[in-house]
Amino acid sequence: MKKIINDPNLVVQDMLKGLVSAYPNSFKQVPNTTVIVRKDAPATGKVGLVSGGGSGHEPAHAGYVGKGMLDAAVCGEVFTSPTPDQVYEAIKAVDGGAGVFLIIKNYTGDVMNFEMAAELAQADGIEVEQVIVNDDVAVEDSSFTTGRRGIAGTIFVHKIAGAKAEAGGSLQDVKTIAEKVVANVRSMGMALSPCTVPAAGKPSFELADNEMEVGMGIHGEPGTERKAITTADEIATELTQKILDDMHLSNGDEVAVMVNGLGSTPEMELYIVNGKVNDILKEKGINIYKTFVGEYMTSLEMAGCSVTLLKLDDELKELLNAESQAPAFRN
Amino acid sequence: MKKIINDPNLVVQDMLKGLVSAYPNSFKQVPNTTVIVRKDAPATGKVGLVSGGGSGHEPAHAGYVGKGMLDAAVCGEVFTSPTPDQVYEAIKAVDGGAGVFLIIKNYTGDVMNFEMAAELAQADGIEVEQVIVNDDVAVEDSSFTTGRRGIAGTIFVHKIAGAKAEAGGSLQDVKTIAEKVVANVRSMGMALSPCTVPAAGKPSFELADNEMEVGMGIHGEPGTERKAITTADEIATELTQKILDDMHLSNGDEVAVMVNGLGSTPEMELYIVNGKVNDILKEKGINIYKTFVGEYMTSLEMAGCSVTLLKLDDELKELLNAESQAPAFRN
Repeated sequence: MKKIINDPNLVVQDMLKGLVSAYPNSFKQVPNTTVIVRKDAPATGKVGLVSGGGSGHEPAHAGYVGKGMLDAAVCGEVFTSPTPDQVYEAIKAVDGGAGVFLIIKNYTGDVMNFEMAAELAQADGIEVEQVIVNDDVAVEDSSFTTGRRGIAGTIFVHKIAGAKAEAGGSLQDVKTIAEKVVANVRSMGMALSPCTVPAAGKPSFELADNEMEVGMGIHGEPGTERKAITTADEIATELTQKILDDMHLSNGDEVAVMVNGLGSTPEMELYIVNGKVNDILKEKGINIYKTFVGEYMTSLEMAGCSVTLLKLDDELKELLNAESQAPAFRN
Repeated sequence: MKKIINDPNLVVQDMLKGLVSAYPNSFKQVPNTTVIVRKDAPATGKVGLVSGGGSGHEPAHAGYVGKGMLDAAVCGEVFTSPTPDQVYEAIKAVDGGAGVFLIIKNYTGDVMNFEMAAELAQADGIEVEQVIVNDDVAVEDSSFTTGRRGIAGTIFVHKIAGAKAEAGGSLQDVKTIAEKVVANVRSMGMALSPCTVPAAGKPSFELADNEMEVGMGIHGEPGTERKAITTADEIATELTQKILDDMHLSNGDEVAVMVNGLGSTPEMELYIVNGKVNDILKEKGINIYKTFVGEYMTSLEMAGCSVTLLKLDDELKELLNAESQAPAFRN
């Protein structure tokens, strides 16, 4: 295992220290937790937004904490759901009296622990609502999931629900818009290589030198097919077509595109994929309103990428364009 | 070689297509070149800023094209200096009558080809000035360099010189401030693994399973020492100390810090390094004004990182904070 770390069992703790010291005017860590919140939290009268999950997907989710996006990120151990008490601390830290909204990626552990935390907070009199993100069209049910997995499309939920809350939306407004994003966002990924969880010390699976896995999850969960590596154009076509099969976009529809790197894929390759995604959408008469290329939801040092499409309307466009001061999503 | 590409010989061309299609309102490609310029170039009366070099260092340099930073980036073949005629095309494309300023990383090929291009443009009556960035304290002279190499510190030159030009600075003003940044910026890197140039098809060097190389260049040029991997804290200490030995910072001085990933290092690890860099500087009474953690100057999928320190004064702080609309550096 080649990693720039100290103790494999302290990577999350060490990372949080480095995060807070990088953005001391924006972030604070709730004492004795793995929760990162905005420095000025809670914001009185604003709905508080909380997301999180296992670590190892950076910049998700702490990189999305900031004005216009999340109020808190709960950072679990690597690829491990945060415990209910940690999520509960996050909810309490961002409760400004207008309720707290949870954005949960659809993994069984995350859903269970966030919901338990919500119950604890509700018992304290804090109003809590939630959305479950399940944008990955690759597989129904998976190693850690009932239903579809939540992957990079989650970033669009953070951005748009965050903008709604920042604009003074009520808890119900935020829930409604978050559900609208979830209904209109689809993703699919592929991997060329595995990654190594520090505490495990070895890769969670193996791929042969000429192999890739299509539909791979962000924790290395199996995808739909393992086969010989094809070209960037074929990969882009396969991912985009699978998404389009599920979205029923029509000529003239507008979308946001995200081409997301899983960790060790050079930005050069992500742009090559984007060129083909662009061609495919243009051929179908689908208008690309905005494109995001980079590392938004990673899987440690896994090589591979995902493609996300979000169908837009005027309301979603306005919220997508709103100001964000989160370090990993500046608008 | 596991890469998401089409033809290994067309990676730069394919990347440029994907770049321009990602930012159609910000970027255009000068026809029949590998030059990316701002959509609105040339800006009449503004000094035009041009940088570039071999590709494979994305987001450098095209990601820094935008209001407040570069006007053009010349994208050579992977790890290969762009030819003089390409640089010449970039100069002509951004000449708005106030002269053109070249930001060159100190590699023999880059310096030669940018200077030849400057002569061609000067023969056309375009005023051209330049700065050579040599921030890497690791080694004097190297495989492709006489003197010190230019690495991630170059991004601060783009940012600060770009802000000066945007604010209406003359060609001489831009040169003066760029030279001030170069005089005050130092970097050093290390690598855990090599990378593979697509057209070569195999890694340019090898490191054993337990080995790292300290002082490694961004093209895999040899560093100062090859040894067993140490901890993140020890790596951060070694890089930072080597930089500090060369900078003579005093108690109370202010710096900007950049912890840069070389391609496949998880953001988690960069934050772990940042935590220690922060500790070291605080212990010495050096104030950290602003921190940048992420991938700014990569080396394809090389694993490793670099640390950069920029000593600041009020003038540099103001320019560092100025607006930037470049995709890879939003301010």
